[in-house]
Amino acid sequence: MLHPVVLSGGSGTRLWPLSRQNQPKQFLALIGERSLYQETVLRASRLPGAAAPVTVCADDHRFMVGEQLAAVGLSSGGILLEPAARNTAPAIALAALHLLARDPEALMLVLPADHLIEDEAAFRDAVAGAMTLASENFLVTFGIRPDYAETGYGYIRRGTPLGDAGFEVERFVEKPDRETAEAYLEDGGYWWNSGMFLFRAARYLEELERHAPAIARAAREAHANARSDLDFTRIDRDAFAASPSDSIDYAVMEKTDRAAVVPVSCGWSDIGSWSALWSVAERDGDDNRHDGDVISVDSRGNLVRAAERRMIATLGVEDLVIVDTPDATLVARKDRVQDVKTLVDRMKADGRTEHLVHRKVYRPWGSYDSLAVGPRFQVKRIVVNPGAALSLQRHAHRAEHWVVVSGVAEVTCGDRVYEVAENESTFIPRGSVHRLRNCGKTPVELIEVQSGGYLGEDDIERLEDVYGRS
Amino acid sequence: MLHPVVLSGGSGTRLWPLSRQNQPKQFLALIGERSLYQETVLRASRLPGAAAPVTVCADDHRFMVGEQLAAVGLSSGGILLEPAARNTAPAIALAALHLLARDPEALMLVLPADHLIEDEAAFRDAVAGAMTLASENFLVTFGIRPDYAETGYGYIRRGTPLGDAGFEVERFVEKPDRETAEAYLEDGGYWWNSGMFLFRAARYLEELERHAPAIARAAREAHANARSDLDFTRIDRDAFAASPSDSIDYAVMEKTDRAAVVPVSCGWSDIGSWSALWSVAERDGDDNRHDGDVISVDSRGNLVRAAERRMIATLGVEDLVIVDTPDATLVARKDRVQDVKTLVDRMKADGRTEHLVHRKVYRPWGSYDSLAVGPRFQVKRIVVNPGAALSLQRHAHRAEHWVVVSGVAEVTCGDRVYEVAENESTFIPRGSVHRLRNCGKTPVELIEVQSGGYLGEDDIERLEDVYGRS
Repeated sequence: MLHPVVLSGGSGTRLWPLSRQNQPKQFLALIGERSLYQETVLRASRLPGAAAPVTVCADDHRFMVGEQLAAVGLSSGGILLEPAARNTAPAIALAALHLLARDPEALMLVLPADHLIEDEAAFRDAVAGAMTLASENFLVTFGIRPDYAETGYGYIRRGTPLGDAGFEVERFVEKPDRETAEAYLEDGGYWWNSGMFLFRAARYLEELERHAPAIARAAREAHANARSDLDFTRIDRDAFAASPSDSIDYAVMEKTDRAAVVPVSCGWSDIGSWSALWSVAERDGDDNRHDGDVISVDSRGNLVRAAERRMIATLGVEDLVIVDTPDATLVARKDRVQDVKTLVDRMKADGRTEHLVHRKVYRPWGSYDSLAVGPRFQVKRIVVNPGAALSLQRHAHRAEHWVVVSGVAEVTCGDRVYEVAENESTFIPRGSVHRLRNCGKTPVELIEVQSGGYLGEDDIERLEDVYGRS
Repeated sequence: MLHPVVLSGGSGTRLWPLSRQNQPKQFLALIGERSLYQETVLRASRLPGAAAPVTVCADDHRFMVGEQLAAVGLSSGGILLEPAARNTAPAIALAALHLLARDPEALMLVLPADHLIEDEAAFRDAVAGAMTLASENFLVTFGIRPDYAETGYGYIRRGTPLGDAGFEVERFVEKPDRETAEAYLEDGGYWWNSGMFLFRAARYLEELERHAPAIARAAREAHANARSDLDFTRIDRDAFAASPSDSIDYAVMEKTDRAAVVPVSCGWSDIGSWSALWSVAERDGDDNRHDGDVISVDSRGNLVRAAERRMIATLGVEDLVIVDTPDATLVARKDRVQDVKTLVDRMKADGRTEHLVHRKVYRPWGSYDSLAVGPRFQVKRIVVNPGAALSLQRHAHRAEHWVVVSGVAEVTCGDRVYEVAENESTFIPRGSVHRLRNCGKTPVELIEVQSGGYLGEDDIERLEDVYGRS
């Protein structure tokens, strides 16, 4: 069976302020209504004979993965939580071990979660070709036929043809300079290294064992000691931390003598920057890409994204990237967006948080969004998923007022347990032990008004928590 | 006595999105913490022998004027409410009539509310000179010595000297073309027409009677039929509407044979656009003016204003105006900001409201700010001034939940009247007659959560209102 394995480890900030550490690129709806992660798992699930996708992601992103999978109605083949980032070779090893326990003949299709593919039919054909080669024990990589001389990607030089489906890999080459990239384009036998792979899980582990035994050993131990936690597989922290950090390219693909490459032209982009997004997005007659509520006079060549409930007006500007979020707005020259990193570094150095977290925060039980903060109050919109519950908790410094906007909340306050329905409200006095639970079938949405002299997130004493946080 | 008369009739949108119809330029804190109106009344109040200032403003702005005066601790010499905009000649006539009823010898210093003056000492000296000429029955205008060849202002050609203080006006000249403006600058005898005037109230009315009798007649009748309303003088609507609309320049100054001009170099600006504000504002080493939370990499020559609780990051951009507010952001090329009008016209044509009202709305009893809106809820922050009360009212479609954040609110709900103190909350069921009142000495600040299927401002039935709105 073909098992899609989606690598969702990225924590990039190149699309700041939309991407943040707590919500990286793969979880954003950059084009259309679904996130790149959702598009990736859906695309994979439509492949003939595909099993439910396995996702490898950071611990911090587990609830987002779960929620985004559920939102597109897909069941999960497993969500493996990496306790630390160790690059792709160890992550793929974890997925291979996970699959082998279920299917000794498993074929793995490894897909980064944050890439765009416009031509799904071409992708499907390439996967079919790669499956043939993988069943002949090749480790297959996908080479994107370049349509311009990109200097930001590594390239793959094709070797001897392997039937109709692909080629042996002659060699992998590093990111070239402009002149070399142009020569590659001219040559026609150099393709972009896409980061997508297809092979038998057992073959990958054999080759890893041979060429990077320390990674293979650490992955085996970390996987053997993994614990199940709700829908997640929690990989052992200490064992995994002992793994060298390396990419599948360096650790395996460049070393094995069974590397194959399948070329594909499928409208691929890794959307590595705001200008890359502008390039692949549909644009209006003035070459503008506008998302959200934008009005524009005499403006050309811009990428403009307005945040919800906010409008952006442009006047006489060209070739800008303007990206608005509830707490921060970026205005950048489009040809300078690779330096968003410099801005993020500045924020880090200043001890800020706008690069780390969005205003909306995902929690195991749902999410909250801080709508407004004042000297003695904070207003949050809270969504509690069906069947979920917040911890039993107490605040030393604040009272909380809850107004239920939709759904029915079960509220514990002191000794009382009672229901609060739509349009009703309740009050949690300062110091009272309380809990919020959703026993219904639809999400509970409520507005929380906190009042008091100190309103920090750290004023919380958790007495009981179904998610092990107490 | 010298009576400052502040004309606050402007409703300009040239500084959109910060200026809106409900909060025009004069009420904004553009430089520093006080609004241009507040700076104007304070500057006037510091003139030797100055009486309390008279303000002429639009009816819609009355509570803002009252609040801004109170905030700087000034008493008012009167707030005259124009029921319609009729340009400066009728507005000044109203003020003259108002003053003559109190002081037959009143000297009026007419000041637009939205101008910046950096050198107060120079201004004061000019006023002293003008007082001398006004007491000799001249109608004095102030001429700003130009420091560059501006084509956007009218000019005044000086005539024969009148002692040390000033000159007769030889003639007023229209906005010149570039070449003419340069010739004026070179000549040295042409000054910018500032829109500030000083004369005896009685003299102004005499000249108005002579040169624009219809205006004088309408103003007299509108003033005679005025009604007092709280601290305001409500000018009669029908009589005032009958007045021709004309400027003091056209109606009087260009026609009288007693026009004098006092030259002054006082760092004057009418801040007629975002680029004008940038020009007069202090800037950093890269020629940027940043207000609020701004971080900037490789950016030069920009004016950037971040809204409260929001950050703006700029990267590699030059000569832009970026102005952020809670509901709209402008990004414009600095040399195109005169076309903000085009944007505003577009909004009008689209039936939008971002050019009319800010999210924060002033009411006779205080203010409210819509913090968040969702499918079935709206959250407002409401401030009720000491001694003020909202109308006795009822909503057909929504329930309201009030959490008091500071102060003590007196709540009427159905038959009950009760107090709600800090950290406490109360609930107004849908359809209940209710009222909110502040009987205390400090403002009541509360968070209102509205819930229900329809949340429009028009779902209100006013049963009783101390401000005459029921």
